[in-house]
Amino acid sequence: MSSYYAHHVFFCLNRREEGRTCCARHDAERLQAYAKSRIKSLGLAGQGKVRINRAGCLDRCEEGPVIVVYPEGIWYTYVDESDIDEIIDSHLVGGKPVDRLRLP
Amino acid sequence: MSSYYAHHVFFCLNRREEGRTCCARHDAERLQAYAKSRIKSLGLAGQGKVRINRAGCLDRCEEGPVIVVYPEGIWYTYVDESDIDEIIDSHLVGGKPVDRLRLP
Repeated sequence: MSSYYAHHVFFCLNRREEGRTCCARHDAERLQAYAKSRIKSLGLAGQGKVRINRAGCLDRCEEGPVIVVYPEGIWYTYVDESDIDEIIDSHLVGGKPVDRLRLP
Repeated sequence: MSSYYAHHVFFCLNRREEGRTCCARHDAERLQAYAKSRIKSLGLAGQGKVRINRAGCLDRCEEGPVIVVYPEGIWYTYVDESDIDEIIDSHLVGGKPVDRLRLP
């Protein structure tokens, strides 16, 4: 059976006020919105295509900011729009994961 | 390569104040917390095991409340603790999805 979304992308947006670091301190909210907007403008949003999702803590805080792409189960970190663009263009559109941004 | 989490479970917790229905109106917050607590008490939480995650809108509002389990890509709806228990015991522990709760 095929997946409801071809690529379901979860951005950790968790914010911690003290102690452990968190993805929200690395501009995760802004870059999730950027990714969602770019996917929509490419006509790739929706069932059978791509969903850019908000998520709570994915519990890889020290490696953050993190996203995970399912059903592949591929994890990434990122810094800015150019990293998000590369993940979209290479992986979500082209089917080729971006090795330099992958987490083990 | 094996998945960072054997089962990564996302509960839609989206709340809408008007218009379309939403998972939050179906006790999603309380049942996500229940699932997380039960997985922890079973010793199943963590890398290589199970993660019970909070998520924003999964965009299947009319079928809600919904959860999705990755990397399998299996979607469920649920009503109460007994449904959550069945998903945990049969699927997450036993490896057998719960057909009566699955979404197409």
